[in-house]
Amino acid sequence: MRIDSESLHDLARGAGILGSGGGGDPYYSLLLSEAALMRGNGHDLIPLTEFSENSLIVPCGWIGAPTVSIEKLPSGNEVAAGLRRLEALLGKKIDAVMPIEIGGGNGLAPFIAAAELGVPVADADGMGRAFPESQMAIFNIRRLKACPSVVTASCGTIATIETENNLTHERVARGLSVSLGGIAHMVEYPLSGQEAQDHAIQGSISAAIEAGASVRLARASGTDPFEALTEALKRTTLYPYATLLFEGKIVDLERETRGGFSVGKVLVSSFDAKNSMQIGFQNENLVARRNGEICAMTPDLITVMDHESAEAITTEKLRFGQRVRIIGIAAPRMLREPNALSFLGPRAFGLDIDFQPIETLNEGAIA
Amino acid sequence: MRIDSESLHDLARGAGILGSGGGGDPYYSLLLSEAALMRGNGHDLIPLTEFSENSLIVPCGWIGAPTVSIEKLPSGNEVAAGLRRLEALLGKKIDAVMPIEIGGGNGLAPFIAAAELGVPVADADGMGRAFPESQMAIFNIRRLKACPSVVTASCGTIATIETENNLTHERVARGLSVSLGGIAHMVEYPLSGQEAQDHAIQGSISAAIEAGASVRLARASGTDPFEALTEALKRTTLYPYATLLFEGKIVDLERETRGGFSVGKVLVSSFDAKNSMQIGFQNENLVARRNGEICAMTPDLITVMDHESAEAITTEKLRFGQRVRIIGIAAPRMLREPNALSFLGPRAFGLDIDFQPIETLNEGAIA
Repeated sequence: MRIDSESLHDLARGAGILGSGGGGDPYYSLLLSEAALMRGNGHDLIPLTEFSENSLIVPCGWIGAPTVSIEKLPSGNEVAAGLRRLEALLGKKIDAVMPIEIGGGNGLAPFIAAAELGVPVADADGMGRAFPESQMAIFNIRRLKACPSVVTASCGTIATIETENNLTHERVARGLSVSLGGIAHMVEYPLSGQEAQDHAIQGSISAAIEAGASVRLARASGTDPFEALTEALKRTTLYPYATLLFEGKIVDLERETRGGFSVGKVLVSSFDAKNSMQIGFQNENLVARRNGEICAMTPDLITVMDHESAEAITTEKLRFGQRVRIIGIAAPRMLREPNALSFLGPRAFGLDIDFQPIETLNEGAIA
Repeated sequence: MRIDSESLHDLARGAGILGSGGGGDPYYSLLLSEAALMRGNGHDLIPLTEFSENSLIVPCGWIGAPTVSIEKLPSGNEVAAGLRRLEALLGKKIDAVMPIEIGGGNGLAPFIAAAELGVPVADADGMGRAFPESQMAIFNIRRLKACPSVVTASCGTIATIETENNLTHERVARGLSVSLGGIAHMVEYPLSGQEAQDHAIQGSISAAIEAGASVRLARASGTDPFEALTEALKRTTLYPYATLLFEGKIVDLERETRGGFSVGKVLVSSFDAKNSMQIGFQNENLVARRNGEICAMTPDLITVMDHESAEAITTEKLRFGQRVRIIGIAAPRMLREPNALSFLGPRAFGLDIDFQPIETLNEGAIA
């Protein structure tokens, strides 16, 4: 599949929706990807199944606090510099790149690199959404190694990490992102074609493009973009359930940049002020409570969207007074396996609750 | 010069004295160096002038808070692992190692590596004492590049750093030391033989051995070790002035581990309680005030020593009630050049005072 400018815009919109509030606002990544597109010959998006089992497929993405990423802009060289350094470290050419997480700006990060290195993008990612920490990638859950990894920054600094322990890797990479100003790019979990096929979340990039396109087409035809979106998500089969959780106005917002993350909570009041929804987040939206009752929790997706345009609002872009709709999306099946839940479920974020699927929590609810 | 066990002990004692309170207590490095000595064929200490101008000479040392280093012990593999990684990165064999700083445990760090790699130690270092930050090495002052550098930790993690900016390098390396538990080993400023000869502080290892030996010999013969030490230092010509600044008992101590450093101040009262000395430190002792008047300041050396044994007490080993003598030592000439003072003088540590040489401040004083 050839990725043109319209597909990039659809992807940016869809990745924002699949970010569950995280992964960073896709806007700058979109600009960089479009610039790369204009310099080069376009991008190829290729299913994972078309790569040989010995090929080298490299996930990449930004690490740091999204609140920083909207003020400290990338140089545009980070991604290619990191991939080239990894090639030197492994003594091997990269055959394809993929996003470490489809959510937010990170869903687009590989397109910048792909254009510069002249390699295709594999239609897959490592999270099926966005998560705040590196060890939350499915590749860690499936016991693959994060290292060697390469962290690059806008100042030109290149750091490599080699450790057997994926949690140490996350801690060291997080520390690097803080030392380097709060945001950096990382290539990690270098995969063989076989490993990628066995463990990656396949088809997530084309799913994001379809989600983004459904909103664009609905707006153009004057139909309801939220309805179009939930229908489009269900059609992808990766995201088999999606529902409108709440609508209203943001009436309270706490957000701080702590330990390299954006952490906080947002309170939304219904327009008649009779109902409310509170969402807690750590880069990503983690748990949504409607009138105090939990109605969605990680790893299921919770996305705050502009009430009219149906554009996703990432956690660092939340503002008092915004009129929003909040949708919940069932996570891809691989993220709900018992072993995955120990890394991605509410307890992994210090919440003392057991995971319950969004479709169970919302049986017979408003949507 | 062949380094045997006695020379290693003299070096440990001398490096402690030249640490100005920093560089970490030499005890663990001594144990590791002796163990390396017992496994191997001994160490060669060779003057820098004997290396060809194209040889590769690599400074190494520990980075982090000395307060951590006495609780989180090294694995013993850090130094060799870092040097081997640097060899792979540069595609070149290392011809010799040297301490990045002669002071404290870092004065001994290269001996561990030398034994493992089968290379000699060059009789030189990068600071002529100990300083808390990487960019305080004479190599940065003389505009050489810190990178590529390699940071290794006891858990087996290896990180490499490449940046053109030596201050960024310090910030990133410091962040790594914090992420890796508060202490890590670093090889940095890889030098050609020519660069090392032009810029390193030459002869500092043999000067430390002589200083340490003078204390040992004085104690064995029942003469005053402090007098023997100050005479021995003056004979080295590297340290042309040394004097007893104060003696008394530690009556107050503030020390915290902050931003990867041990920071604080110590108050010493004379035995008759009529006079006092306060010393401020950031890993190293920075400024000494006798009854409120400054009598020594960085880059000159200020070393607190056990009142009887004349063993140096590093800042992390200071304790309430210790009976101490405090000596001041003129810094090597290269550290007092105007350009060097902008990196190493009191203002580099946020103190609003101009550098004054210890020999001027103590004209006609007690020693």
